[in-house]
Amino acid sequence: MPGFRTDLAMEAFDGANRHSLPGVRVDRRESDGAALTEVEITDGAAAEALGKPVGRYLTLECPGLRHPDPAKRQTVAALLAEALGQLLPAEPGAGALVVGLGNREITPDALGPAVVDRTLVTRHLTGDLAPAEDLRPVSAIAPGVLGVTGIETMELVESLVRLVRPGVVLCVDSLAARDSHRLGTTFQLTDAGIQPGAGVGNHRRALNRESVGAPVVAIGMPTVIHAATLARDAFDWLSQEDGDAEDREAALQDMERALLGGEPGGMIVTPREIDSMIQDAAEIVATAVNRALQSGLTPAELDALI
Amino acid sequence: MPGFRTDLAMEAFDGANRHSLPGVRVDRRESDGAALTEVEITDGAAAEALGKPVGRYLTLECPGLRHPDPAKRQTVAALLAEALGQLLPAEPGAGALVVGLGNREITPDALGPAVVDRTLVTRHLTGDLAPAEDLRPVSAIAPGVLGVTGIETMELVESLVRLVRPGVVLCVDSLAARDSHRLGTTFQLTDAGIQPGAGVGNHRRALNRESVGAPVVAIGMPTVIHAATLARDAFDWLSQEDGDAEDREAALQDMERALLGGEPGGMIVTPREIDSMIQDAAEIVATAVNRALQSGLTPAELDALI
Amino acid sequence: MPGFRTDLAMEAFDGANRHSLPGVRVDRRESDGAALTEVEITDGAAAEALGKPVGRYLTLECPGLRHPDPAKRQTVAALLAEALGQLLPAEPGAGALVVGLGNREITPDALGPAVVDRTLVTRHLTGDLAPAEDLRPVSAIAPGVLGVTGIETMELVESLVRLVRPGVVLCVDSLAARDSHRLGTTFQLTDAGIQPGAGVGNHRRALNRESVGAPVVAIGMPTVIHAATLARDAFDWLSQEDGDAEDREAALQDMERALLGGEPGGMIVTPREIDSMIQDAAEIVATAVNRALQSGLTPAELDALI
Amino acid sequence: MPGFRTDLAMEAFDGANRHSLPGVRVDRRESDGAALTEVEITDGAAAEALGKPVGRYLTLECPGLRHPDPAKRQTVAALLAEALGQLLPAEPGAGALVVGLGNREITPDALGPAVVDRTLVTRHLTGDLAPAEDLRPVSAIAPGVLGVTGIETMELVESLVRLVRPGVVLCVDSLAARDSHRLGTTFQLTDAGIQPGAGVGNHRRALNRESVGAPVVAIGMPTVIHAATLARDAFDWLSQEDGDAEDREAALQDMERALLGGEPGGMIVTPREIDSMIQDAAEIVATAVNRALQSGLTPAELDALI
Repeated sequence: MPGFRTDLAMEAFDGANRHSLPGVRVDRRESDGAALTEVEITDGAAAEALGKPVGRYLTLECPGLRHPDPAKRQTVAALLAEALGQLLPAEPGAGALVVGLGNREITPDALGPAVVDRTLVTRHLTGDLAPAEDLRPVSAIAPGVLGVTGIETMELVESLVRLVRPGVVLCVDSLAARDSHRLGTTFQLTDAGIQPGAGVGNHRRALNRESVGAPVVAIGMPTVIHAATLARDAFDWLSQEDGDAEDREAALQDMERALLGGEPGGMIVTPREIDSMIQDAAEIVATAVNRALQSGLTPAELDALI
Repeated sequence: MPGFRTDLAMEAFDGANRHSLPGVRVDRRESDGAALTEVEITDGAAAEALGKPVGRYLTLECPGLRHPDPAKRQTVAALLAEALGQLLPAEPGAGALVVGLGNREITPDALGPAVVDRTLVTRHLTGDLAPAEDLRPVSAIAPGVLGVTGIETMELVESLVRLVRPGVVLCVDSLAARDSHRLGTTFQLTDAGIQPGAGVGNHRRALNRESVGAPVVAIGMPTVIHAATLARDAFDWLSQEDGDAEDREAALQDMERALLGGEPGGMIVTPREIDSMIQDAAEIVATAVNRALQSGLTPAELDALI
Repeated sequence: MPGFRTDLAMEAFDGANRHSLPGVRVDRRESDGAALTEVEITDGAAAEALGKPVGRYLTLECPGLRHPDPAKRQTVAALLAEALGQLLPAEPGAGALVVGLGNREITPDALGPAVVDRTLVTRHLTGDLAPAEDLRPVSAIAPGVLGVTGIETMELVESLVRLVRPGVVLCVDSLAARDSHRLGTTFQLTDAGIQPGAGVGNHRRALNRESVGAPVVAIGMPTVIHAATLARDAFDWLSQEDGDAEDREAALQDMERALLGGEPGGMIVTPREIDSMIQDAAEIVATAVNRALQSGLTPAELDALI
Repeated sequence: MPGFRTDLAMEAFDGANRHSLPGVRVDRRESDGAALTEVEITDGAAAEALGKPVGRYLTLECPGLRHPDPAKRQTVAALLAEALGQLLPAEPGAGALVVGLGNREITPDALGPAVVDRTLVTRHLTGDLAPAEDLRPVSAIAPGVLGVTGIETMELVESLVRLVRPGVVLCVDSLAARDSHRLGTTFQLTDAGIQPGAGVGNHRRALNRESVGAPVVAIGMPTVIHAATLARDAFDWLSQEDGDAEDREAALQDMERALLGGEPGGMIVTPREIDSMIQDAAEIVATAVNRALQSGLTPAELDALI
């Protein structure tokens, strides 16, 4: 059940047998105190083994963000913009629809809406209203989650794609990870879209080119570890002998019940400073999104428009 | 330019020559310290004279809300639910889409989104998930304003109607009024939809059955007076003699420039306690919406579901 | 290190050898779906064994709050008001100072400030301004935490006591627990004040009669489990054999480092719906505080004043 | 009643007979698109005539802030820091207490608390904890308003001064102005403290060296015009002939009642974008406060500490 434990392709890959997986290409570079890992899943067998669909997954790790200063954030935003640029379709004229997934009333799930609030929207500024030449038409919306709208997110996005006809849909979401080091410090970008998985909220259906009718690039940052994942990792850490799989699962469930009560699914592990972590990350991601989408403008020109 | 000055049909009517307007039917009842006025505009000539489209306009005035206590709010919510019930289509099964207009980041424009946050959403709860029988399927969304999304609200709502196929669209919006007594104390309900007009935000196109493809019932509460309206009313109050219309307008514009600076359109008059006024009103309107839409449930059953 | 793991005297007592602790009196009653446990620590030896100072600790457990409806919340508020009444000094005339501890910018630490925002403040309403007779003079403040103010909370409260001269200081705080069932469902009231301990924030010095100069009654609700506590409990659950204490501690620290990274102290376990949990709890606690302090008023009279 | 109409000494002075007021020294400089006016009131007769106490009033006008970009904000913050530096006592070692006046739950009154939230607090960082040498010890608090705490602000500040013993108290507050051009674009700094006056909230007693026991420097920005002020200005604009003073006042009150209802005191004029205006201004003022107080650090060193 890897999808339950992490949304990060990199963690799924690390959790699998790293050196022997055909259908997966891995590449890693470091610069400016950050590491960019690309995991490319090229065939269905590998996709099934890792529990992630075929596609490119760029993971930017920035451990320095745990104690950020504004200069560090600018550096990370620039690296993220560059990585995002690699996944965007070439033709800028086609326009982009930025979709902030998640629930703005639940702090650890609010990254997507917070990025949308800071996105430079330009689709309605045409002709004489246009503040600059060569602007890519951008629209942005935080549609809310199923429990709040009564409408499945995938349906909503498909409906918006039909209305706006964007060249690319950029989905921003809060993710779940396994490793607490990654909370607030790691960004994942992928052209594989969003699949039902770990997440903070619950997307019941995949958002990808097939389901919504346009290429989907997803940007996410882990904001939580599921408490059940932590408990399972504690279990694994302590009982390395393998034993009988069924016995293991029963013992695990006993432990989860004992430690996490009747609702292990609702308990999350998160930094105490979750509120400022979300705000800081939204600032970084929005800066990266605005730069990558409006690559014809300088940072100063962008700042003046926002 | 009556549309510039007020969103309330009742104020438009009071501003016109009250006793001699054909094509307008007015009815007024009082109960529980509140007054319900129905203005029905029945023909196009009257609509043009008042600057409001043909339709029924129910106005509930509750002066006691200025110093509210919880019991008073319950009474008003019940009256509002009853009035709303008069405008809703008869068949409950068809479902409703609640749309919160306005910008949640601008306090005086945030009534719509705040009501959506409190709306009981049921469209996704079907079959075994249904928490009660006879639930009307309700979906709800606060899509954001054009400047934030890059998408015209009317287009968005039309697109949602195509997706959800509701029997009625219920639009909730913050209004502009002329009389400061009405801020936070008066509710307008109409089956004429939302037209480009005064408002706090800017809807550039009408939301009605023609434009969005389903019957539109609008609920609004005035949260502001445009400062320019106040200045014009001061001008009128002080200079009752009629004089030359062109001279008047020139003098008025001089005064507006002197008192309101270069941007008279952006200045509003509002109670100092605008934040709590919006929260209290959202509570009342959402209670009324939930009761009117789920008329098969008792208030206690409703409370338990929210 | 029991203080590290829980702020609840009841959990500390359950964790100790329950049936053989002299100096501790325990009493338990159930009503309305809630259980009230009183732990009274009567001597210093017991206090040291449990890591809690001498005093009365009332714990109200309300498992039904996990899926609350308004009626349930009213019942709990009434029970909590009654329990609080048992700890308040008898003479109402002396006045009360309500202190909301914690940081309002950190959601899981914001219970105290959220209660202060809903407290009926009356100290400044005297003579002709008094809205009712027999009002207890109440003042309320959320002074902020050391990292935000630069001032130790204990010093601030002592300074306020000198200014206001209250008959009792009522401190409201977010607590840490061990058992995830208790998050959002359990309230602890004590006349022992607040001691440096687990907590969500960091109080470096005790708040009690000795340190601040007036009797201190504390009300708290667990909002988090420290992730390190969960990891340690997983460790205990899995390795019941006792072994060498030093080896155990080293193994535990290895596990914490592996699972919680370099900063185990900053990671917390909390319900995903932490935001609404805090708001709902603040509503309950504030209702209880207002009723207990203004015991001369009926609930309806109170509602009309807030 | 000049105090009713504006908190700005500069507007009070402009409203008086500019060229003939002894006891007032005026100086004006322009740079970087901003104008700095110093009004120094040197004797009691002038103070009474203007309705402002004796002291220095620096007013920084930055019309460009109405459509701000980040670069513009940095320029204004630097100018404001420089002006503030002129009013601060020379000895940095004595420490500063920053007090955010106003109510954080009322948007137009929330400037002070929002600045406190962004103030670099250092008083508790001493010895090994000190992040840099030559830090001025700074503490900061947003104590809340009388209606929320039950405690008069002046008493609270006096009590904090006794505890912290600062060399200077820096009070930040939301002001009322007469001219709508100034909302969000003008900053007033004064060593005369805060007097009961126009304001957005209600300070009933002065905060100055005499009342709180330390020098008080006040920083304010107008966020509102009282609607009654606007109505009175409209009246003045339209009826320049002087007539009988009593008749004028009666006519004015009639107009206010007609236009502003029964509660003219509670209605304010403010920009529609009041929320973002407050956030942007808080950013500028906090940057200026941090720079002026920690004049031994470079902007980059400061950024890294916040």
